[in-house]
Amino acid sequence: MPNRIGRYVIELPTRPEIISWGSAVGKTESEGPLAAHFDICYNTDKVCDGTWEECESQLAMDAINKAFNKAGKTFDDADIIFAGDLLNQCAASAFAVRSTDIPFAGLFGACSTMALSLALAALSVDSGAARLAGAAASSHFCSAERQFRFPLEYGGQKTPTSQHTVTGAGSVLVSDAKNGMPYVKNIMIGRIRDLGIKDANNMGAAMAPAASCTIADFLRDTGTTPADYDLILTGDLGVVGTELLHELMLTREQTDITDVHNDCGLMIYDTETQDVTAGGSGCGCSASVLTSVILKKIMRREYRNILFVATGALMSTTTAQQGNSIPGIAHAVQICMD
Amino acid sequence: MPNRIGRYVIELPTRPEIISWGSAVGKTESEGPLAAHFDICYNTDKVCDGTWEECESQLAMDAINKAFNKAGKTFDDADIIFAGDLLNQCAASAFAVRSTDIPFAGLFGACSTMALSLALAALSVDSGAARLAGAAASSHFCSAERQFRFPLEYGGQKTPTSQHTVTGAGSVLVSDAKNGMPYVKNIMIGRIRDLGIKDANNMGAAMAPAASCTIADFLRDTGTTPADYDLILTGDLGVVGTELLHELMLTREQTDITDVHNDCGLMIYDTETQDVTAGGSGCGCSASVLTSVILKKIMRREYRNILFVATGALMSTTTAQQGNSIPGIAHAVQICMD
Repeated sequence: MPNRIGRYVIELPTRPEIISWGSAVGKTESEGPLAAHFDICYNTDKVCDGTWEECESQLAMDAINKAFNKAGKTFDDADIIFAGDLLNQCAASAFAVRSTDIPFAGLFGACSTMALSLALAALSVDSGAARLAGAAASSHFCSAERQFRFPLEYGGQKTPTSQHTVTGAGSVLVSDAKNGMPYVKNIMIGRIRDLGIKDANNMGAAMAPAASCTIADFLRDTGTTPADYDLILTGDLGVVGTELLHELMLTREQTDITDVHNDCGLMIYDTETQDVTAGGSGCGCSASVLTSVILKKIMRREYRNILFVATGALMSTTTAQQGNSIPGIAHAVQICMD
Repeated sequence: MPNRIGRYVIELPTRPEIISWGSAVGKTESEGPLAAHFDICYNTDKVCDGTWEECESQLAMDAINKAFNKAGKTFDDADIIFAGDLLNQCAASAFAVRSTDIPFAGLFGACSTMALSLALAALSVDSGAARLAGAAASSHFCSAERQFRFPLEYGGQKTPTSQHTVTGAGSVLVSDAKNGMPYVKNIMIGRIRDLGIKDANNMGAAMAPAASCTIADFLRDTGTTPADYDLILTGDLGVVGTELLHELMLTREQTDITDVHNDCGLMIYDTETQDVTAGGSGCGCSASVLTSVILKKIMRREYRNILFVATGALMSTTTAQQGNSIPGIAHAVQICMD
């Protein structure tokens, strides 16, 4: 039964286990440094015969299918699935989950969705509301470009601070079974932080204050320091946001996280050689990185204690065009391995 | 601690109480049959100086503020708030919650959002993850028209099966305190139902199968019949969807719910005299009806046992334009009063 520690952290004493996970990615991700770790690597972003939006749904389905298959579970074994994405009305997730017939709680956390879905899935299992709960998130470069910026055919140029939306998806299954798998120790739902950034091509800057706030709150509530973690993994701050996070943590929180921090947006691409401007972003970024190399390393006990902090920018093209600033949020999940 | 009963229903044995609620609505709703029950009735849809989207955020803020004020609580007393809306990237909720500094879990359930947010808020409290949890949902006729159909200036004509998006919002506070207030007995997260409806001007038809499925599952899991409830209240099926729901329940489930059923989309307007085609819709429809007349009647013990089943159509303009059918979903919350 969940138990609040400090002001914001929720401890999950039953230690719900992440019994399996699946990831599926597109072409650019399959050419990046994590290629060997993904379950499914497409050599194209056109991963099905349909539209870009249907391709995104396909990636989400692939990741969900993979997680169930690896665990030897059927959809009927699951009590609930939490999922979300960046598309208007979270359509990619709804169309992906539609065929599974699993009770579906749709989420919107922008690029923080993988942490939000995993946190709520783990909470459901810890509380007894679910025995087996799914979590998933997805994004697609081409559906995101069309929706948030310009159709690909337009050939728009990118600014150096902009990030490249990951074509990919990730899914995990959380269970009340005790099999010595990685488990969720603590979760934390983040608060919105908005320091007035209005540049929709600089999401890293918009999200860094939220990441800093969540990490600082989490450390304070749990009475831990960065040195207690093998890895503090942010969602998709990219090159610009990562620098800002380090600075904010140092100047505002007097905490140096540089030794244990990495960012999914930096890991998924080689920002030196791949044409991805300031790194990866999108719900699929932290989702696919967590459900590939990270959980693999936790299984191998290369990491025994990580803090996963996915970050999201809660804006729309409408709010940006209307001159509003970009609210940022970051949710945290502590994953451990005995 | 939550407890699964049957296949889909989650019982909340601690009986988390709905300690307060707030509602705010626009002009058409203020001229409708429920006017006397809303907390805040604007005589215009331009409820603030900003854009239509900002007006929707204002309504959500109004409802949230009202719920906190009535309970004598500050935002700092809340451990989490679940909220969502129909705008792209759920922007109305994010901008409303931004100033509260409450940990924010964004949801997307289309017009089912009020049931989803209330269900998860009650689950959080029952499980111990939160002592005080908020839930909210909003919609606005003008922001929805612009986003889903045409800008108002275009003067588009409506088809008779189309519904009128409610300009309104509702919010509740769920607490672990024991004060003899209405309480949440059971919750149920719905499964997606899609019978191939592609007419975006007939949401009632798209959502009726999901409502039927959720109500039938709920009755089966709890071993109850419609006669056990003072009211089975669907979200916003309107005239067309209500007829279809009654028919589906009779023919597919051999269950007659007509004696105890009502629909928020039928209640909020006078469909005979107000120009609202087939009735109300939008996240704000079931949100504002629940948090006004319904909870008031539960407080007065006119109802002692209701099943609140908000329904949502999980489509976007993009999926509709691409020729996809409309997935429906319905989540259920049983609210009781001793």
